[in-house]
Amino acid sequence: MKFIIQKDHLVQSVQDVMKAVSSRTTIPILTGIKIVATREGVTLTGSDSDISIESFIPAEEDGSEIVEVKQSGSIVLQARFFSEIVKKLPSDSVEIEVENQLSTIIRSGRAEFNLNGLDANEYPQLPQIEENNVFKISTDLLKNMIRQTVFAVSTSETRPILTGVNWKVENSELTCIATDSHRLALRKAMVKTEIQDTYNVVIPGKSLNELSKILDDNTELVDIVITENQVLFKTKHLLFYSRLLDGNYPDTSRLIPNESKTEVIVSTKLFLQAIDRASLLAKEGRNNVVKLSTMPDNIIEVSSNSPEIGKVIEELQSETIEGEELKISFSAKYMMDALKALEGTEIRVSFTGAMRPFLIRTLHDESILQLILPVRTF
Amino acid sequence: MKFIIQKDHLVQSVQDVMKAVSSRTTIPILTGIKIVATREGVTLTGSDSDISIESFIPAEEDGSEIVEVKQSGSIVLQARFFSEIVKKLPSDSVEIEVENQLSTIIRSGRAEFNLNGLDANEYPQLPQIEENNVFKISTDLLKNMIRQTVFAVSTSETRPILTGVNWKVENSELTCIATDSHRLALRKAMVKTEIQDTYNVVIPGKSLNELSKILDDNTELVDIVITENQVLFKTKHLLFYSRLLDGNYPDTSRLIPNESKTEVIVSTKLFLQAIDRASLLAKEGRNNVVKLSTMPDNIIEVSSNSPEIGKVIEELQSETIEGEELKISFSAKYMMDALKALEGTEIRVSFTGAMRPFLIRTLHDESILQLILPVRTF
Repeated sequence: MKFIIQKDHLVQSVQDVMKAVSSRTTIPILTGIKIVATREGVTLTGSDSDISIESFIPAEEDGSEIVEVKQSGSIVLQARFFSEIVKKLPSDSVEIEVENQLSTIIRSGRAEFNLNGLDANEYPQLPQIEENNVFKISTDLLKNMIRQTVFAVSTSETRPILTGVNWKVENSELTCIATDSHRLALRKAMVKTEIQDTYNVVIPGKSLNELSKILDDNTELVDIVITENQVLFKTKHLLFYSRLLDGNYPDTSRLIPNESKTEVIVSTKLFLQAIDRASLLAKEGRNNVVKLSTMPDNIIEVSSNSPEIGKVIEELQSETIEGEELKISFSAKYMMDALKALEGTEIRVSFTGAMRPFLIRTLHDESILQLILPVRTF
Repeated sequence: MKFIIQKDHLVQSVQDVMKAVSSRTTIPILTGIKIVATREGVTLTGSDSDISIESFIPAEEDGSEIVEVKQSGSIVLQARFFSEIVKKLPSDSVEIEVENQLSTIIRSGRAEFNLNGLDANEYPQLPQIEENNVFKISTDLLKNMIRQTVFAVSTSETRPILTGVNWKVENSELTCIATDSHRLALRKAMVKTEIQDTYNVVIPGKSLNELSKILDDNTELVDIVITENQVLFKTKHLLFYSRLLDGNYPDTSRLIPNESKTEVIVSTKLFLQAIDRASLLAKEGRNNVVKLSTMPDNIIEVSSNSPEIGKVIEELQSETIEGEELKISFSAKYMMDALKALEGTEIRVSFTGAMRPFLIRTLHDESILQLILPVRTF
C-alpha cells in the first residue's frame, strides 16, 4: 500500500472514525483504524463492535485530486497514535506507505514516522446490509430528533432496553420515543420512503449520541436502513452502523394522558430560568425536587426548600392558567431537560392532578411531547 | 445588614474570592464567603487558610452608585450556593438582608432566596500586614513572571520547598526561580521600590497560579508586601494573601553552567513543533524522552523510538550550529514547557556535553533562562 493524501481530508476522516474506537475493547485489533487504499480512494474504518464507522476519501472530488494511490493495499494502525500523528504533521500532504511486513511509514515535510501496523485481514468484517428498504431524512431533522429524545434514555442497566431509543416507522412516519420510566420524550416526523414496511426497533442511546456528533448541520438527506439487528446511517462519504438492542420496548402509549385538569401556558425561557434558580437549593435535598403552585392572576409560584441550606420562592407571570388549582412537585432536572429539548417561545403544560404524569408541549406543534412523572411530597 | 448592589459587580467579586475557597477544608466556616457591609461599600473574603482573597466593592465609583448600604453588618454564606445563586439572579440589582439571627434573604426581581448564614465573628482573621516595605510591579509583567517560572515547580511533596517559587529581591531587582531538580526556570525584572531591603522567600506555586488567574491583563501596578511568613499582593480593589513556605530554598546558582561547548540557534516555533511530534511516540516509552543530534549543514535531527509502537525521525533546519558535535536525550515535556515559556521567534540552546545541564534562552535577552537536565540513554 502506498498513497499520498491531502492532510485536512485525512484528519477529518480519522476524527470521524475515531468516534467508534474505544480504548477499552476486549478485541485488541479494534484499538486500531483500518486503512484500505484502492484506485477509487481511501477508506478508513473504526469500530467498537457496537458502533462501526466507515469514512471514504475519494481519489478525486470536484475535479481536484485528494488522494494519489500508488499501490493499493490495506493496514491497521493504532488509532491513538495515528490520530495524534496526522493532526500534528508539518506539511499539507502526507505519504503513507506499508513497507516490508506491516511496518508503515508516514512521511510529511521532513518528518518521518514508522508505525508497527497490524494485518488488515484480521480486522472484523462490518455487517453486510442489503440496501433495499431505505428511508431518507434530512441531516438537521435527524439531529434534532436525536437531541429531543436521547437525553431521556435510562442510564441504568437494570432494564437494558430502556438505554435505547424506540424507533418506529409506519405510514412514512418515524416516531422516536425514550423513557427512563420517570419521564418520556417523544418526537415524530415524516420520512421520505418508497416502501410500505413498518419497523419497531431500539437503537442504543450511545450510538445516537455519537451519530449526532459526527453529522454536520446541513439539509442533505441521510439514508437509513434497518435490518433485524443492525441500523445503517449513510451520508455521502460516511457509513455509520449500530447494533440494535434485543427485546421488546414497552408500550408507552397508555402512559400519555388524553385529558387534563389544569393547563398552563408560559414563556419557555422564563420558566426554565425560574426552575434553574429553584433547583440551586434542591440539589442537596430529595433528588432535586422543586414545587409548583398555581396562584390567582395567572401567577405560578416555583419553590424549593432544603432545611440545612435554605429555601427559595419565585413568582412567575404565566400567559394563562385554566382549570383546577394545583400544587405539584417534580424533578427540576427532568423539567429543565424537557424545556431545553422543546422549540418555541411558549409552552403548554397539561396537568391531570398532583399525582399523575403531566405533558409539556410546544404551542401548536403535535410532533413533539415531553412527559414527566411528579414526585409525591404533599 | 442590608444593602442593594449591582449584580455584575457582585458576580465578579464573588468569582474572585471563590478562587481561595476550597470545599476540602477542615475548618467548616472556610467553605463560606464572608460579607461585610459598611458605609464605604461591601467587602467579600474567601480563604483556604493558605490563600486568602479580599475583594472590595465601593459604594460609589466614578460618580455612579454601585452599592446602597441601608444597614451595615456582616454574615458568612455558603460559597458554593451563594456563588451559583448570584450568577443566576433574574434582575440587574440584588438586595441582601440579614434577618433575625443569621437567616439571610437574597432578593432579585420576583425571586427570593433564604440562606442559612454563619456568624462572621467566627471567621478567621486575615493576617495583619504592615504596608511599610512595598515594591511595585505592573500586572502584566507580574503575570508573565509567574507564567514563565511556576510550571517548573515540583509536583511531588518529597521536598516541599520545591513546590514553591523562590522570590529574591535585591537592588530593586526581583528574581523568580523554580526547579523540580530536573529542570529550572529563572526570570528577572526590575521593580519599583523606595526601600533597600532584600528578601529571599518561597511562594507556593499553587498561590501564584491562583493569583495569575485573578489578575486582569493590564499595566496597572500591583503592590507587593513580603513579611516573615506571608506575602500580600494588592491591586485597586483586591487583596491577595498567601502564606510562604518554610525552609531554605537550595542555592541554584552553581547549577547554571557558565561555558558551553555547542550552541544552536533555531526558530522557537519550528523546534517546538518538531519536539511535539517526536514526543507522540515517546510518551509510551521511557518518560517521554526524545533525542537530538547535530548534523552537517546546520541540521538538527530530532528523533524518538518506542519499540512496541514505532519510531519517528525529523530533520530541522537551524539558523546556526557552533562548536562540538552532539547527541543528547531529554524530556520532551520539559523542553516544550520551556519553549512555551520563552518569548521571541528564535532561541539559543547552549549545551556543555551530553550529560550536563543545558540552557535555553531567547536571543539578546538575559532576563529569562530555562535549564534542563538531560537523560542518560547513550
